Amino acid sequence: MIRSEQGWRDDMTTWTVDQGGAWWENGRLALIDQTRLPETFLVLYPDSLEEVADAIRQLKVRGAPAIGIAAAYGLVVALDEAAPSAAAEAWAVLEQAADTLRATRPTAVNLAWAVDRVLGRARATAPEDPAAIRGAVLAEATAIALEDRELCRRMGQFGVEALGEARRILTHCNAGALATGGFGTATAPLYALHAAGEPLWVLADETRPLLQGARLTAWELHRAGIPVHLIVDGASGVAMAKGLVEAVIVGADRIATNGDTANKVGTFNLALAAARHGIPFFVAAPHSTFDPNMATGSAIPIEERSSTEITDWRGHRLAPEGVGALNFAFDVTPHDLITAFITDRGVLRPPYTESIPAMLGAVTA
Amino acid sequence: MIRSEQGWRDDMTTWTVDQGGAWWENGRLALIDQTRLPETFLVLYPDSLEEVADAIRQLKVRGAPAIGIAAAYGLVVALDEAAPSAAAEAWAVLEQAADTLRATRPTAVNLAWAVDRVLGRARATAPEDPAAIRGAVLAEATAIALEDRELCRRMGQFGVEALGEARRILTHCNAGALATGGFGTATAPLYALHAAGEPLWVLADETRPLLQGARLTAWELHRAGIPVHLIVDGASGVAMAKGLVEAVIVGADRIATNGDTANKVGTFNLALAAARHGIPFFVAAPHSTFDPNMATGSAIPIEERSSTEITDWRGHRLAPEGVGALNFAFDVTPHDLITAFITDRGVLRPPYTESIPAMLGAVTA
Repeated sequence: MIRSEQGWRDDMTTWTVDQGGAWWENGRLALIDQTRLPETFLVLYPDSLEEVADAIRQLKVRGAPAIGIAAAYGLVVALDEAAPSAAAEAWAVLEQAADTLRATRPTAVNLAWAVDRVLGRARATAPEDPAAIRGAVLAEATAIALEDRELCRRMGQFGVEALGEARRILTHCNAGALATGGFGTATAPLYALHAAGEPLWVLADETRPLLQGARLTAWELHRAGIPVHLIVDGASGVAMAKGLVEAVIVGADRIATNGDTANKVGTFNLALAAARHGIPFFVAAPHSTFDPNMATGSAIPIEERSSTEITDWRGHRLAPEGVGALNFAFDVTPHDLITAFITDRGVLRPPYTESIPAMLGAVTA
Repeated sequence: MIRSEQGWRDDMTTWTVDQGGAWWENGRLALIDQTRLPETFLVLYPDSLEEVADAIRQLKVRGAPAIGIAAAYGLVVALDEAAPSAAAEAWAVLEQAADTLRATRPTAVNLAWAVDRVLGRARATAPEDPAAIRGAVLAEATAIALEDRELCRRMGQFGVEALGEARRILTHCNAGALATGGFGTATAPLYALHAAGEPLWVLADETRPLLQGARLTAWELHRAGIPVHLIVDGASGVAMAKGLVEAVIVGADRIATNGDTANKVGTFNLALAAARHGIPFFVAAPHSTFDPNMATGSAIPIEERSSTEITDWRGHRLAPEGVGALNFAFDVTPHDLITAFITDRGVLRPPYTESIPAMLGAVTA
């Protein structure tokens, strides 16, 4: 992954929340290594398909939109690695790369969506030689990255509207700038409010097992100057009972057309706590996270990851030898627990079986 | 705390679940250092009041019943340390020790209950000299420890009845043998079923921030031969949605007379998940955990502990520098989420405002 001194930097002065977790820089795919935060800010420049796929599998790049961006640019990386000499060979490289990339994470729908979109649109421009194919693929990947930032900016505006007067916000995992092409999904309204000078206070679930809330959300909010405190994932109930939370915003990895939402494990429990206390529970996601082929959440595949993510922490064994763990990386929050979806096309309210297809139809049209 | 090589041992062959987390051994208070498990099994022999108080504050001994036992024997330790030469001096030592011990943990009611009971009953025997006072205090502390084991054994029997056919059990934190004088509260029915040859499968919430589920519950169940898998605290919802859980059993630190229950943070969220899925949610606790002076959970003090329990793990910083945490150690589960209480006097069902006072009256009578 890190080929040379030129392959990385640990200069933290240049990154801002509009930059996101993955971008194209001087002819190369650039990724923040999110497994190294908050201790180390490291930008990776993977220069093979396998390095891109590994970065996605190992969560060096994570968050549904950022994975989509990385995979889209990853197709260019695959072409540059293979250096095909004819168009047919280039398409074969791209098809194989697409299969490899789609298989890295089963739950996030944006990944397959981004890969399919890049290949489909690149084909549609009928490029005739490998250089033209590369140009078309890069153009479409770049379009996805720039669009994602714009979608997040719009989610920020719609999110401000949805939040109303709420300024004490609880979030889970990292649906932040790092997880997207910029601004984040769940965090976009927070950055918008902060930019407008509104006082905010964020509670961040630490989000076991990989602590994306503690390591990533706290890092980017604190860096942006937004006050943030951590709680353990089990403390959302008591925090709400104490009146510390006015609204919850989370991201999503896949949303069925009835509103059932797959997101980081713990989201379902958080939604139950919000419902118990009558606290609005918002899901922020771009239209590409809604899966028109998934009618309910019951069919969404739930990725199970290695038990060592739970039993070990950076070389320390947390559990007794011989004891394993079940590591469901996601859960599905039933639609009835969700107050509204904050999308790039507006705020969707129940009944979702009407508002979601209407929004998806508007996007397709 | 550890005075000499003779002050500890790491021989794991002698401890069994009937022994509990604190006991009297050869004229000394013995405690398993629960902060060192599962890596190291270490028995501490604190020989000053301050060492006992520190062991409670630092959670070396933890679990409401075990804290009560440690505090009761701690009064003997205080006497042995002070070596009073007259009865009045002995009572003064005991009163001061009682104040120190009561202040160590505000949420668990057993601590104050045990200290008050030891002093009250010792006084009632009207001992006339320091040696007789010590004898009376030690006798009452021993009675509490032995009674606690017997109460747990009975909770095991009543718990088997309450569980019915359920054999896939989820538990939170450690309401296990380590937390009591033996067998545990929530685990007592599991040990009883296991002893009867019933097949069992336990899911243990890891229980952030201090991982009592991963470090302690998994350790003692695995050691006893009961299959156990860990999940992160946020995964109880998805585990239930997948049909992996037939019943939940947890312990308690204090229970109001309407059934509102203070227990380790995360219990409330877990109870919400169980209610959502129609899964029975049991609280196992001896009668001493019910606080007759607390009508509802709203007045139960919730201990807030150091934020570094969340932001750091054994010297590793988990969160960015400058980011703090709110560390509520407990939460209150409202009574409507609790299917039944498993006590040493039987299984209590709603309405709790009737069944709890009836049980407490029977104990007092």
